[in-house]
Amino acid sequence: MQKTGLLLIDVQKGLEDPSLGERNNPGAEKNIQKLLLVWRKRGLPVVHIQHCSTEPDSKLRPELPGNKIKSEAQPLPEEMLFKKSVNSAFIGTGLEKYLRKNEIWTLVIAGLTTDHCVSASTRMASDLGFEVTVVSDATAAFGRIGYDDILYSGEEIHTINLVSLDGEFCNVRSTEEVLRAIPA
Amino acid sequence: MQKTGLLLIDVQKGLEDPSLGERNNPGAEKNIQKLLLVWRKRGLPVVHIQHCSTEPDSKLRPELPGNKIKSEAQPLPEEMLFKKSVNSAFIGTGLEKYLRKNEIWTLVIAGLTTDHCVSASTRMASDLGFEVTVVSDATAAFGRIGYDDILYSGEEIHTINLVSLDGEFCNVRSTEEVLRAIPA
Repeated sequence: MQKTGLLLIDVQKGLEDPSLGERNNPGAEKNIQKLLLVWRKRGLPVVHIQHCSTEPDSKLRPELPGNKIKSEAQPLPEEMLFKKSVNSAFIGTGLEKYLRKNEIWTLVIAGLTTDHCVSASTRMASDLGFEVTVVSDATAAFGRIGYDDILYSGEEIHTINLVSLDGEFCNVRSTEEVLRAIPA
Repeated sequence: MQKTGLLLIDVQKGLEDPSLGERNNPGAEKNIQKLLLVWRKRGLPVVHIQHCSTEPDSKLRPELPGNKIKSEAQPLPEEMLFKKSVNSAFIGTGLEKYLRKNEIWTLVIAGLTTDHCVSASTRMASDLGFEVTVVSDATAAFGRIGYDDILYSGEEIHTINLVSLDGEFCNVRSTEEVLRAIPA
């Protein structure tokens, strides 16, 4: 895990907006914080991704308080941070170039939300040749009414999106499993 | 729909391999054929994507019979075809450049499989700025045992992956709905 980067996606206050619906994994932020503290302690690379929406109604627009990163994932001044305006952390950012330049070929990905920005970024990371682990209990999804008018829970959307990623684009592991694999 | 392109992804014989598990939407290929015939009749652009795997055990390796495109989606010599080796049709191909050069800004996507190559390609198309419709009954997914050791059906994987795409990366529509929207 010498050069494994921790990629934290969209851990932002605006995603607490109640209009987004019920969310699974209320402990995701605490697990993100645990991962971040261990990464820092080990001197491993940390990369933060901050969504800066251009959508008129988004709480994640750069000028709004919801754009702020939550305290559990607050970046240190020396840590890399890329701002994005679409789902994938690789589109419109210098992320791919930065990872290649710094020879970071393996990534542990956590953040919000499982089925939108985490999944889109994981898929692209894998397709671009990076080895990816997604941390199941350090990501979360919102429930919603589908195109078929059926209500799906955050938990089922979260889990099935991870099932689709696992083995094809990444390995899915828990925070505890990831931390066990990090050399002391 | 003047310049709406039909993007057909991985409609290939190797995806009939029984080892892939049970699949939903047995009628997906017939719907793909319906879409293709209407696109040709209207003179709208058609783009085929063919997966050429580099994985040792894949039935979609270029030298194997499973690499062949199924009869329902057989490309005409004058239609565009891009070969890819990862999930997204936009990585390692000239697809994005071709679409921009030909001013094709809206895409109707169908093919296999819903949660792997169709979802990865839809997400990138949207993030790159294209307007996307995914055709729910002209795509399909395989059931599998998840990272949590639970068996998920092709139908639930298919549906929840479409729920995650709909409204964020694309609109999800049926073949009939798409064909109704095409000018005669």
